[in-house]
Amino acid sequence: MRKAFADAKVKALVVSRPEDVSYLSGFTGDDSVLVVGRGWACLITDGRYAEQAAGECRGIGIHVRKGEAMSAAIAEALKGRPVRRIAVQADHVTLQFHEALAKALKRRRIVPVAGVVEARRKIKDVAEVRAIRKAIAVAERAFKALLAKGARGFVGRTERRIAAELDYLMRLEGADRPAFETIVGAGSHGSLPHYRPGDRRIRRGDAVLIDWGAVVGGYCSDLTRVVFIGRISPRIGVIHEVVRRAQEAGIAALRPGVSGKSADAAARRVIEAAGYGENFVHGLGHGVGRQIHKSPGISRTAKARLRPGMVVTVEPGIYLAGVGGVRIEDDVLITPKGRRRLSTLPRDAGSMVLR
Amino acid sequence: MRKAFADAKVKALVVSRPEDVSYLSGFTGDDSVLVVGRGWACLITDGRYAEQAAGECRGIGIHVRKGEAMSAAIAEALKGRPVRRIAVQADHVTLQFHEALAKALKRRRIVPVAGVVEARRKIKDVAEVRAIRKAIAVAERAFKALLAKGARGFVGRTERRIAAELDYLMRLEGADRPAFETIVGAGSHGSLPHYRPGDRRIRRGDAVLIDWGAVVGGYCSDLTRVVFIGRISPRIGVIHEVVRRAQEAGIAALRPGVSGKSADAAARRVIEAAGYGENFVHGLGHGVGRQIHKSPGISRTAKARLRPGMVVTVEPGIYLAGVGGVRIEDDVLITPKGRRRLSTLPRDAGSMVLR
Repeated sequence: MRKAFADAKVKALVVSRPEDVSYLSGFTGDDSVLVVGRGWACLITDGRYAEQAAGECRGIGIHVRKGEAMSAAIAEALKGRPVRRIAVQADHVTLQFHEALAKALKRRRIVPVAGVVEARRKIKDVAEVRAIRKAIAVAERAFKALLAKGARGFVGRTERRIAAELDYLMRLEGADRPAFETIVGAGSHGSLPHYRPGDRRIRRGDAVLIDWGAVVGGYCSDLTRVVFIGRISPRIGVIHEVVRRAQEAGIAALRPGVSGKSADAAARRVIEAAGYGENFVHGLGHGVGRQIHKSPGISRTAKARLRPGMVVTVEPGIYLAGVGGVRIEDDVLITPKGRRRLSTLPRDAGSMVLR
Repeated sequence: MRKAFADAKVKALVVSRPEDVSYLSGFTGDDSVLVVGRGWACLITDGRYAEQAAGECRGIGIHVRKGEAMSAAIAEALKGRPVRRIAVQADHVTLQFHEALAKALKRRRIVPVAGVVEARRKIKDVAEVRAIRKAIAVAERAFKALLAKGARGFVGRTERRIAAELDYLMRLEGADRPAFETIVGAGSHGSLPHYRPGDRRIRRGDAVLIDWGAVVGGYCSDLTRVVFIGRISPRIGVIHEVVRRAQEAGIAALRPGVSGKSADAAARRVIEAAGYGENFVHGLGHGVGRQIHKSPGISRTAKARLRPGMVVTVEPGIYLAGVGGVRIEDDVLITPKGRRRLSTLPRDAGSMVLR
């Protein structure tokens, strides 16, 4: 981060986004801020986390707030340090916090910078890729356990119930928590890309779209499959095959130097050629790591180029309002020469038919 | 909100906090912004939520973004409207978004305001109190189900496993999700107020601190109890009784017109008198509603006065590093004449001993 410090002409950075605090310090609690200087760092937390912080953050100063505002505590931590300009995370700090901090820091100048920690975070090292693989393995084992009972594990149960079971199975397999609100959309609900599971009961003949992921040791996985209860309806079968081919094309397009935009286009072309361009209503994918839905984006507007060590989702979809939808999502590592799919579940419709 | 509009001399407000968007519009998705004017409102969302928004938001215009930035879409939604000054949520909007919006809105002036929606939200109407009661009932039923197997439901299981089961039971009882990461802290882990459950196995003789809550229909509950596996150790028994009395004093102090500060003091006095003042390391409570940990705060620094319709937690605790901790937490409604405890679980240690 030295270069970023030099570019912004600052001597320290206030890290306020929890995932960034945790990435840099190891601290896993909330409501805490890390102030990073050259050769020093200080975690500012409160009494609830004092004992935990002492255990998690070796080699970092810990300041425990006692009723004083976070901004005042940051000023306190900077006392006596020759920091005239200090950076804050422009994409996380609120106007209100900025104002309070400006008051507390008096003559020190606050410089909003964006993406300093994120720029580091989006390139994963070996340990991080291992952590993501673990989050994928947990999510996949839970999914297989959910499918193990066949169609009778689904028929007559609500979407909500299936989501609850999958979440529970992920926890039993070692997840800290689901990476996001698990989507289980049966029948026509599959056409809502971010559907929230409801009380619709699953019937024989349904296609059920499931989008789920696990957090393990702070890292996320993000997967989607469509499960067929008993049989594949012709209409959904057709779009499933288009989406499968689009995903293949999207994955094949991933390599260092390629922009998110052109990877998106590679998949989108397949869907457009099949006449469903209007029904692919979101981007092809996004970065995965400590957060879900992070950069690099892979969408029609994503100009940034892919680099080795990035992990992204590839998740084309076709949504037919009132009928249903298909999305197939895998997590893919950008390698020095191309890409490697990290998730291992089969992608053909036939493998997802439950008897 | 008319008064707030007049005070800030604005003609419209950009609502960006998801809970506020959902409170005002009924929309339950993410990544969307509500622009509210006098007599008009427009939800700005994207393709993933277009169908859902149309179903959830009656009487509100819906603008579906197609690749353009949120700031550009807001400018678009304001086109032709005589809005020279527009408010944004100072306690939610980031510096980065503010800058983008300022560019997109050109000559319209942006006015940061804090707490406009929150001021309304913290006073709950009858339907909202009913929703919170429901979230409490779900959490309590799940907790009772967890305890139903007695000590053998706990002994030999990890904290993580117990947390996973409680979360699953809440879902089966009707929760949309847990209101926060459920805390299960066995033995000495009870002394970490925001402990994250780990692989520690529960043993006979343990005191297990459980802090959990459910979200039902967008509203939260938040409860804490200590469960005793087989027996109550003398040291924990002593602090449990102090905490129980402190909670009673704290609840008794709640009524309209009283400041959060003095309610906190009422409970804190009991703990200090018993010699554990240093071990009560957080505030007495906080507001509960669509979010957890919201205003009004009930802490040493909370000057705001309580008003009828507020729902707050009352959760004193005593934490002994390396030994264990006790916290007892209930959700309480401020009524015109006093207060009403909404949660119904017993609070004495004896009722929480599992055989």
